[in-house]
Amino acid sequence: MALIVQKFGGSSLATPGHIRRVAGTIAATRNRGDQVAVVVSAMEGETDRLLDLAQELSPEPPAREQDSLLATGEQASAALMAIALHSLGCPARSFLGLQLPLLTDGNHSRARILDLSTGLLQQALEQGIVPVVAGFQGVTADGAITTLGRGGSDTSAVALAAALKAGVCEIHTDVDGVYTADPAICPQARHLKKISYEEMLELAGLGAKVLQIRSVELAQKYQVPLLVKSSFGSNKCTWVVKEDENMESAVVSGITLDRSEAKLSVIRVPDRPGIAYRILSPLAEAAINVDMIIQNASSEGYTDFTFTLPKVDLPKARQLVEFVAREIEALEVRADNNIAKVSAVGTGMKNHPGVAARMFKALADENINIQMISTSEIRISCVIEAKYGELAVRILHEAFNLANGA
Amino acid sequence: MALIVQKFGGSSLATPGHIRRVAGTIAATRNRGDQVAVVVSAMEGETDRLLDLAQELSPEPPAREQDSLLATGEQASAALMAIALHSLGCPARSFLGLQLPLLTDGNHSRARILDLSTGLLQQALEQGIVPVVAGFQGVTADGAITTLGRGGSDTSAVALAAALKAGVCEIHTDVDGVYTADPAICPQARHLKKISYEEMLELAGLGAKVLQIRSVELAQKYQVPLLVKSSFGSNKCTWVVKEDENMESAVVSGITLDRSEAKLSVIRVPDRPGIAYRILSPLAEAAINVDMIIQNASSEGYTDFTFTLPKVDLPKARQLVEFVAREIEALEVRADNNIAKVSAVGTGMKNHPGVAARMFKALADENINIQMISTSEIRISCVIEAKYGELAVRILHEAFNLANGA
Repeated sequence: MALIVQKFGGSSLATPGHIRRVAGTIAATRNRGDQVAVVVSAMEGETDRLLDLAQELSPEPPAREQDSLLATGEQASAALMAIALHSLGCPARSFLGLQLPLLTDGNHSRARILDLSTGLLQQALEQGIVPVVAGFQGVTADGAITTLGRGGSDTSAVALAAALKAGVCEIHTDVDGVYTADPAICPQARHLKKISYEEMLELAGLGAKVLQIRSVELAQKYQVPLLVKSSFGSNKCTWVVKEDENMESAVVSGITLDRSEAKLSVIRVPDRPGIAYRILSPLAEAAINVDMIIQNASSEGYTDFTFTLPKVDLPKARQLVEFVAREIEALEVRADNNIAKVSAVGTGMKNHPGVAARMFKALADENINIQMISTSEIRISCVIEAKYGELAVRILHEAFNLANGA
Repeated sequence: MALIVQKFGGSSLATPGHIRRVAGTIAATRNRGDQVAVVVSAMEGETDRLLDLAQELSPEPPAREQDSLLATGEQASAALMAIALHSLGCPARSFLGLQLPLLTDGNHSRARILDLSTGLLQQALEQGIVPVVAGFQGVTADGAITTLGRGGSDTSAVALAAALKAGVCEIHTDVDGVYTADPAICPQARHLKKISYEEMLELAGLGAKVLQIRSVELAQKYQVPLLVKSSFGSNKCTWVVKEDENMESAVVSGITLDRSEAKLSVIRVPDRPGIAYRILSPLAEAAINVDMIIQNASSEGYTDFTFTLPKVDLPKARQLVEFVAREIEALEVRADNNIAKVSAVGTGMKNHPGVAARMFKALADENINIQMISTSEIRISCVIEAKYGELAVRILHEAFNLANGA
């Protein structure tokens, strides 16, 4: 008898009919003789509905209150799932972050898990009761409700699997796993049966919205095997696991496209030590995440300083950077919303030199200009003009022969 | 500086616009220099929406899960109210039953309050923060969420006022107080400025839906002055307070109509000791509340046994009673959905004999047949055929000269 954690996303819980169907999946797993613990997101659209209500009342709702508001979405779906399971003759009990408790720090709207008490869950499991945990939510040591950020239910599920030492954490979602590229952009995209935590981390970080990045970090830390499955009838699925020798070690596993970033350039900055710090520290204070950074080689004592950041933060960042630019007597600040970031990810890169060159050549052959480059051990990313984004994905997918396996 | 508890019902919180307006009322009270603690119901329609979702999944949702589901309604409106208050520059913090805690027994869907901890509330008030408490909900000693029954937010508010020793508990609702009769039935109905707890209890028990009956019991127990006000601009209001000598001591304060009951009769019951117990105890076990009971005088060793009960319980009650009727060899069981109960309520009755006679005469003068009668110290109720209900209210309103004050 294994213990399986099953997490269901909002699109799998859109209506009572969906909930009943998911309850059937859970009951079937239990009837096969396995123990099941369940984690649910809010019903589809519910989080946005609640956010809209809050926005109607205040452009900047206090974070504590917004978290208490949003947590109702998962509370409702956990109760409804327990009701649906009961009606199928499967004993079930819902649990909130506050009830377990799932303890977090006090960073409302993006809280981090500090501790998860499993006493109530173990007790339910021993009594043959399926615990249904409201995802996405936790509680601080002073009893305030927190949320874990968009996609936070994935992280709840992995934390639960780690704490209960489950054999697998199944993420049931509206896609049937991970592909070599977004099939909507690249029809030749191939489904992947297995991928390493490392690769999944890079893909999630690049905006492939299959899993919340923190859930993958947590799964890697506690070596929880993840299984991404579709709730909508597909038989395909993708395992996200520790890299091992048996793993098909593709040079490049996938190509991703990220359109969520914008670019800010500070032109003709006097090239003195500490300039990067002067420009970026106000952004750090404003909790704006900077992604790629380039500082050109100095010429005549001046340099250009360019970086990317989330589009939503551009107006505020521009304001902050323009203030600094005046102070340091730079020439001007240029903002560019019109960019895309295309990336190739693969564990095999570590042992295969020449991947970057192959990538740059493929883009150059189509006259796509590369504006910025950044690399990690298993990833190469290029910023290009937005309109070439989809084309670049298809070119690179072809260049690395991903349709047929590397 | 007084402490005022203000409770707002769902119709006062129907939309973000309504919530913003209520927030204005609260902020204005605070700006006058009083301390305010707020209790909110769910937004209008929300509880029914949630109940419908549960019903779609199961005809009999487990009570623990249904309570956790329904509690989200008040949790959301408390957070939204705190957000709205913040946006008006009024510091506010929402609190759930689970957070305070507001401790109840484990009778899900109709839990009774055992204890209310005021530590967090006092702390907020001392810091100049308006506490916004989610009404209707509590928590058991084991941490399960409970609800206090329909209208339970009134009871939450009175409990809060009692625990905080507030000067007044204001109930802001969609009516502007208590009338001598339902103005929709009786256009001559007169607004009452003041009414005693006792009278309000009888009126609430008779289905005048201004206040939950338990909130009035609690207010009477702790001598909390209640003020029923409209959220919709009327300047009228009704005080519900301890009866005192200054109170206009009307013989009859109001006439009410209750159509929520049905009648069951067991015909030709052998008249033996214990018959009433035999018939009614299965209903008590099924938690069906019986209201009026009549046992006719015995004739030839047989009697007829008649009682009223909520219409919704009639099918189940009929089944239970028919089973008993066969056992005790009664002739038959007759059910009647087609009744109404008209009542006259007034503290002055205690010292004025002849009220009942005046009531019976007024009904007889219009040829309205009285099927059952019950009385308390300050109330006389008659069951009549349903179609005469509204007419009876108008006749009695006139007979007791309520339009002009008794």
